[in-house]
Amino acid sequence: MRFATLPDGSPDGRLHLISRDNAFAVAAEACTTLQSLLENWDALIPHLEAQSSALNSGQAKTAFSFEPTSALAPLPRAWQWLDGSAFDSHGDLLASVFGFDAKQGNPDTILMYQGISDRFLAPTETAVFPREDDQIDFEGEFGVMVDKVPMGVSPEQAGRHIRLLVQINDWSLRAIGPHEMKTGFGVLRCKPRCSMAPVAVTPDELGASWRDYRLDIDLAVDFRGERFGAANGYAMSAGFDRLVAHAAYSRDLVAGTVIGSGTVSNATYREVGSSCIAERRGIEILDHGQASTPFMRNGEYVRMEARLPGGQPLFGAIDQTVSVL
Amino acid sequence: MRFATLPDGSPDGRLHLISRDNAFAVAAEACTTLQSLLENWDALIPHLEAQSSALNSGQAKTAFSFEPTSALAPLPRAWQWLDGSAFDSHGDLLASVFGFDAKQGNPDTILMYQGISDRFLAPTETAVFPREDDQIDFEGEFGVMVDKVPMGVSPEQAGRHIRLLVQINDWSLRAIGPHEMKTGFGVLRCKPRCSMAPVAVTPDELGASWRDYRLDIDLAVDFRGERFGAANGYAMSAGFDRLVAHAAYSRDLVAGTVIGSGTVSNATYREVGSSCIAERRGIEILDHGQASTPFMRNGEYVRMEARLPGGQPLFGAIDQTVSVL
Repeated sequence: MRFATLPDGSPDGRLHLISRDNAFAVAAEACTTLQSLLENWDALIPHLEAQSSALNSGQAKTAFSFEPTSALAPLPRAWQWLDGSAFDSHGDLLASVFGFDAKQGNPDTILMYQGISDRFLAPTETAVFPREDDQIDFEGEFGVMVDKVPMGVSPEQAGRHIRLLVQINDWSLRAIGPHEMKTGFGVLRCKPRCSMAPVAVTPDELGASWRDYRLDIDLAVDFRGERFGAANGYAMSAGFDRLVAHAAYSRDLVAGTVIGSGTVSNATYREVGSSCIAERRGIEILDHGQASTPFMRNGEYVRMEARLPGGQPLFGAIDQTVSVL
Repeated sequence: MRFATLPDGSPDGRLHLISRDNAFAVAAEACTTLQSLLENWDALIPHLEAQSSALNSGQAKTAFSFEPTSALAPLPRAWQWLDGSAFDSHGDLLASVFGFDAKQGNPDTILMYQGISDRFLAPTETAVFPREDDQIDFEGEFGVMVDKVPMGVSPEQAGRHIRLLVQINDWSLRAIGPHEMKTGFGVLRCKPRCSMAPVAVTPDELGASWRDYRLDIDLAVDFRGERFGAANGYAMSAGFDRLVAHAAYSRDLVAGTVIGSGTVSNATYREVGSSCIAERRGIEILDHGQASTPFMRNGEYVRMEARLPGGQPLFGAIDQTVSVL
C-alpha cells in the first residue's frame, strides 16, 4: 500500500491512498492522518487495504490524478525522529579523511541521534538556511516508520513494528558538525529540518527488494546537471530491525517515530557515487589531496529518487532548492 | 500566572489555572491545553489573566482544591525538548574527574542536545528503566517554554519569547553516557523521558528572582533521608535568552519548545550539595580518590522542589520512584 498526505490547511494534512503506479490518489476513508493510522494500525489497515484494492483496480469513484509536487511529507510532523548512520563506507571514508572514528573501534556500535521533527519539509519545499558559509549539504537516506514499540524489544520483535518505508533528505550544515560532535552533546545546529519524498509505502511494495530489513534499491541523486550518486540501500551494517531495537533500549517508541538509515553509501563509491557532498569531497581529498566540489550555494537544487529495480516509481522524488536567509 | 494540566483521558490533558498559593485550580476557559495557549499566547493571555485574577481573589465560582500529586506534566508532550548544560561548575567538576572538557577550551561554547519529548512523565509518576547496572541518576533542572521563535533571533529577541518557567527532572543512565558522547552523535539511550513539576509559571511569578533570564532560587533535592542539594539557579554561564537563541540558529522553534538549563550546580558544591548523584560522586573522587554514593536502586525515590525565597510554593514538587523492568 502507498500513502501520501495532501495539504488541507491543518498541520497534519489529509491522508490519501496512492495507486501502485503513483498516478492516482483517493482520500483515505478509515482515518484522516498518517499519525492516526500509525497509532491504530491493526484496526485500520483492513479497511485501507480494501480501499487500496479498489483504487488499484480502477474502482475508486472519488479517485483523482496524483500530483506528487503538491504533496506534503507523508508525515508532516512526528513526535520523534531518530537518525542512524548505518552505512559503514560513509563513516569509514569520513574517518580516514578527518581522523575521527565515531564507532570507537567497535564495528557493532550503532550510531544514532534525535533530530528535529516538529515539521518535515515537503518534497519540493525550498530549504532555508542561515548562510552559505555553514557548508550546506544534502544527505540522501531511507527511513522507516513504526507503530508503538515497547521498551526493551529484541531486533526480531522490533522488525514487526516497521509499518512504512520512506525516503528522506537529511539536510546538514557541515561547518558546524565537527565542533558539535567534539562536545559530546552531538549534532543540533548542524541538523536543520529534513524533507521526505511524497509517498510512504508498506514494505511489501518492494517485493524481494525489502530483505533483511534493508532496502535493496538504488537512491539516484542528481545535482549540478549530473548523476551525483546511485548508491544501494542494502549495505547497512545494521538493518532497520536493529536500529529500532537500539532506539527502544530505554524508551518505548511513540507510534509514528521515524528512524533513518543515515546517508546511503557503498564501498564502491568511486563507481556508484555519493548521496552527499561531504563524501565526494572526502574521496577528492583521498585521491587528490584536496576537495574540489563546493557545498551548495543559494539557489542550487538537488533531486533524489529511488525507484524499484524495474524502474517503476516508488517514493516519488525529493526536489529541493536552497535559499539563504 | 500559574498553570497545571490535569488528566482528562487525552494525551494533552486539560489546562487549569492555579492560584498563587498553589491551593486552588480552575479549568482554563480561553483554551483547553497548554500547547494551544503557547501557539496563540498574545490573543489568549488577556482572557486568562482576567480568569486568574478572579481565582486569586476568591471569585472563581468553579474553582476547586488543587491536588498537585494528581497533575500531569504541565506540557504532557512537546514537539521539541532541547536540553542545555549551562552550569559550568557541573561540567568543570565532571571534566576534572573524567578528563573530558565538553566545551573544548572555549568558555562561550553552548552545550545542547535534543531529547525525547513525545511524553513528559507526571511529577509523581514512577520512572521505569531497563536495569540498575545502567547507573540510574536524577538531574534537577530548570526550563523555559517558548512561543514560536523565528530562525536567527538575537538573544535579546529570544528572551521575549520565553513565556513560562518549569522545573524538570532529567533522568540519566550514567553507564551509557560516556560511550554515546565519544561517538560524537551524542546522548540518546542514556536519556530516558524527563518529568516536570506540576506547575508552570509566568516569569513575573518569580518577581526579582527572575533576572538576567535566570532563576535566582534554590532547587532543594531530597534523597535517602537527607537534603542532597540546594543549588541556586542563577549560576548559569549563559542565560535562557542565549540558550533559546542558540537553539534557533538554523531552525525556527515550534511553539511549546521546552529548553532546559542542564543540572543546577554551584561552584560551592561542597556547601550547597548537588542536583545529581554523578556530581556528588565526582566530588568524592576528588576528595577521597573514589566514589561512595551509589546510583539509584529499584524502589528508591527522589524529591525535588524549588520554592520562592520566602518559602512560598512555586512549581510544586517532583517526587518519583524508580522501577526496573
